[in-house]
Amino acid sequence: MSRHPDRDQIRIESVLSALGSPVRLAAVRVLDAGGEHNCGSVLAVLGITAKSTMTHHWRVLRESGVIWQRPSGRENLLTLRREDLDARYPGLLDAVLAGAAADETLTRAAADA
Amino acid sequence: MSRHPDRDQIRIESVLSALGSPVRLAAVRVLDAGGEHNCGSVLAVLGITAKSTMTHHWRVLRESGVIWQRPSGRENLLTLRREDLDARYPGLLDAVLAGAAADETLTRAAADA
Repeated sequence: MSRHPDRDQIRIESVLSALGSPVRLAAVRVLDAGGEHNCGSVLAVLGITAKSTMTHHWRVLRESGVIWQRPSGRENLLTLRREDLDARYPGLLDAVLAGAAADETLTRAAADA
Repeated sequence: MSRHPDRDQIRIESVLSALGSPVRLAAVRVLDAGGEHNCGSVLAVLGITAKSTMTHHWRVLRESGVIWQRPSGRENLLTLRREDLDARYPGLLDAVLAGAAADETLTRAAADA
């Protein structure tokens, strides 16, 4: 599994662009629980059944430096690169994840109104 | 000039996607100085001479809620919606702008090495 940028090769435009998709941001929120996740378990949380849908999204997340992706047997294991992202862009990931949670609350409140 | 979302209509994926482009992020950094800027003055700072290049980018920034854009005479005036963005996503814009500045420093250091 190549094409993981080193910490110093990460660029903020690529990180923002990677996070700027509903499905990728949702996946990152799942990975934020910490540890390694296999693709299937993330997809199950997201309610996505087609693995192929995510191949492109994992690549974007990997090549931008947002996640580590490593093959393990027949599947890939995914980890959020929180330490690298926090080192390069202090506060960014927390602000993004808090923002995503706030959006969700707002959307639910609107639906209930 | 329509299609400015209200503060509550702003969604973080759209903001991140709008900021996730080198030229749009550079434009936002110029607007971060505060106040209204006309398109031409922003383009001059960015070293862009083709106004048409930016029409799409201004629309993305406007429709995501990152900037206000209002016609004034023969041109458009642009303002960063910092108050709205800070209210919805505390710390996000500061983290992004600091990250962009840090990337620039890193890129320069690499070029000088």
